[in-house]
Amino acid sequence: MTERILTGDRITGKLHLGHYVGSLKNRVELQHHYETYLLLADVQALTTHFENPVLIKENLHNVALDYLAVGMNPDKATIFIQSLIPEIAELATYFSMFVTVNSLRHNPTIKAEAVERGFQDMYYGFLGYPVSQAADITFCKATLVPVGEDQVPHIEQTRRIVRRFNQLYKPVLVEPRALVGEVPRLVGLDGNNKMSKSLGNAIHLDSSAEEVREKIKKATTDPARIHKTDIGNPEICPVYAYHQAFREEGSDEIYESCKKGQIGCAECKQKITHAINDLLEPMRERRIVYQNNPQRVNEILMSGTEKARLAAKETMQEVREAMSMNYFKK
Amino acid sequence: MTERILTGDRITGKLHLGHYVGSLKNRVELQHHYETYLLLADVQALTTHFENPVLIKENLHNVALDYLAVGMNPDKATIFIQSLIPEIAELATYFSMFVTVNSLRHNPTIKAEAVERGFQDMYYGFLGYPVSQAADITFCKATLVPVGEDQVPHIEQTRRIVRRFNQLYKPVLVEPRALVGEVPRLVGLDGNNKMSKSLGNAIHLDSSAEEVREKIKKATTDPARIHKTDIGNPEICPVYAYHQAFREEGSDEIYESCKKGQIGCAECKQKITHAINDLLEPMRERRIVYQNNPQRVNEILMSGTEKARLAAKETMQEVREAMSMNYFKK
Ligand code: SF4
Ligand code: SF4
Repeated sequence: MTERILTGDRITGKLHLGHYVGSLKNRVELQHHYETYLLLADVQALTTHFENPVLIKENLHNVALDYLAVGMNPDKATIFIQSLIPEIAELATYFSMFVTVNSLRHNPTIKAEAVERGFQDMYYGFLGYPVSQAADITFCKATLVPVGEDQVPHIEQTRRIVRRFNQLYKPVLVEPRALVGEVPRLVGLDGNNKMSKSLGNAIHLDSSAEEVREKIKKATTDPARIHKTDIGNPEICPVYAYHQAFREEGSDEIYESCKKGQIGCAECKQKITHAINDLLEPMRERRIVYQNNPQRVNEILMSGTEKARLAAKETMQEVREAMSMNYFKK
Repeated sequence: MTERILTGDRITGKLHLGHYVGSLKNRVELQHHYETYLLLADVQALTTHFENPVLIKENLHNVALDYLAVGMNPDKATIFIQSLIPEIAELATYFSMFVTVNSLRHNPTIKAEAVERGFQDMYYGFLGYPVSQAADITFCKATLVPVGEDQVPHIEQTRRIVRRFNQLYKPVLVEPRALVGEVPRLVGLDGNNKMSKSLGNAIHLDSSAEEVREKIKKATTDPARIHKTDIGNPEICPVYAYHQAFREEGSDEIYESCKKGQIGCAECKQKITHAINDLLEPMRERRIVYQNNPQRVNEILMSGTEKARLAAKETMQEVREAMSMNYFKK
């Protein structure tokens, strides 16, 4: 049996190079080896953005375009919209009966995010994030979930929920495994250790060549360097980090030249600008094709959602049967 | 506009005379004045019975028969099954985004039930009961919910949720009102102040005449009375309570005769046995018709559920539109 992967993003903004490095690049590769379910998580986005659903709507199509632009192949990956699979809410409801509030409170990610966002009194839906995530993963019987090391506790919670369900009722759900991989983090243009839309230090995947050039031009460098001949410290320079991420072959040379004061920051930036634009160029080409054909994008989303819905319906039939809720069956 | 009522029962057992006195009698009357949605709450039953879903399945048809037997008219009342309306789970999910955990914890009924059931660590679904109840009421745009005084805080929470939704997004949901009425409580056969299946002190609506006779025969009376001429205290006698509930015209006479030692308990019990059997007899007749035609019962449940589902779909379309989640609309 082919392994089935479930992956996706909360829809809270356009995707950027940080997403590419951290997950998208990997996903494009994975789709050739695994059956891929790619979730546009609009409902989960509401847990933190319920006051601004218009932002979710605006970005849903953007993220779909980002997926297609980076090379997700709609013939290989099932791209679907969470809110159009009501079975996910149903399944989460059933899970919620036997998951305790304390086990959710102790989930490290919930804990951390609650602190980070300053939630004194958590929203009920936010607290239930791990339950809803378990439903996202199990409704389509995903066997693998690509995650970083820090996300492993979430998958563990899903596994516990699945085991409990299977033991309480019948073993109809699949216990997923974490496909733990490196999730490289990309530094922001301002040197902040995370590229993030909200920090305004990101290069979005839909940037034009000109925008990339402008942004790199303004990027932070080693502030001690003024002249080309000044000895630099690439370790603290985001531009060098980009060389490592996007220009692997040439990054050692940059390191040496910078250390020895043999390259100017302008030249160094030019090189990385080219490399990033070389990476983004085929994405731009794919994007423009889809952008000019929004009906095609809608079709992809609708047919992906339709396919996911069928899987959901099948699973729910088994779930109802396992829970003795098949009331009209002889 | 006709007012629409939402009412129903958690499916945890067959219904008994306590239910009849407390709510069913009233509902049979209300169906002639209001459009009635009658909920078979199997999902809410799971909040406390998730370990025993077979019990829910067994009783779902029993309760449906109880409804039909007491005189709920399927042409007037829409009898439907909660778990077959996935929109309820969806709506509850959206509500859960902006309802805080603390506001749920402070709900007096959640508080009381948690104590009563000894839940040290509450289940997540149990804690969310008021959210899910808000979805039960609003998915069909009920305007009125018949409740006892003690249930008013629940309806208040629903009203707050609806107001918040309407203010966050668009005013598409209806704020229901509590139709506060007396909810007479029927004492158990053992004198315990609540008739309850789990206490084994109940007369079920499907009891035969013989069963009623046997149960009343064994019912507690004033223990100080041994001879007919002993002076009795009807105030502490459940049999007298049944006279009040089911034989109103004759109950004053019983009161006097008991007080004066002019009636024996056997005779007194005979009278109430007759009265209860007179009440149950037409129910038995209606029940047997439906019992002999299970297909008809299934049809009633399926068409009621179908009708409720249509209302749910309409509401969800408005909800999605209000939340800017109508992604494919031009
Ligand atoms: S030369 Fe390159 S790596 Fe060195 S400080 Fe300048 S931009 Fe950074
Ligand atoms: S006479 Fe009737 S009311 Fe009085 S104690 Fe006996 S059963 Fe109860």
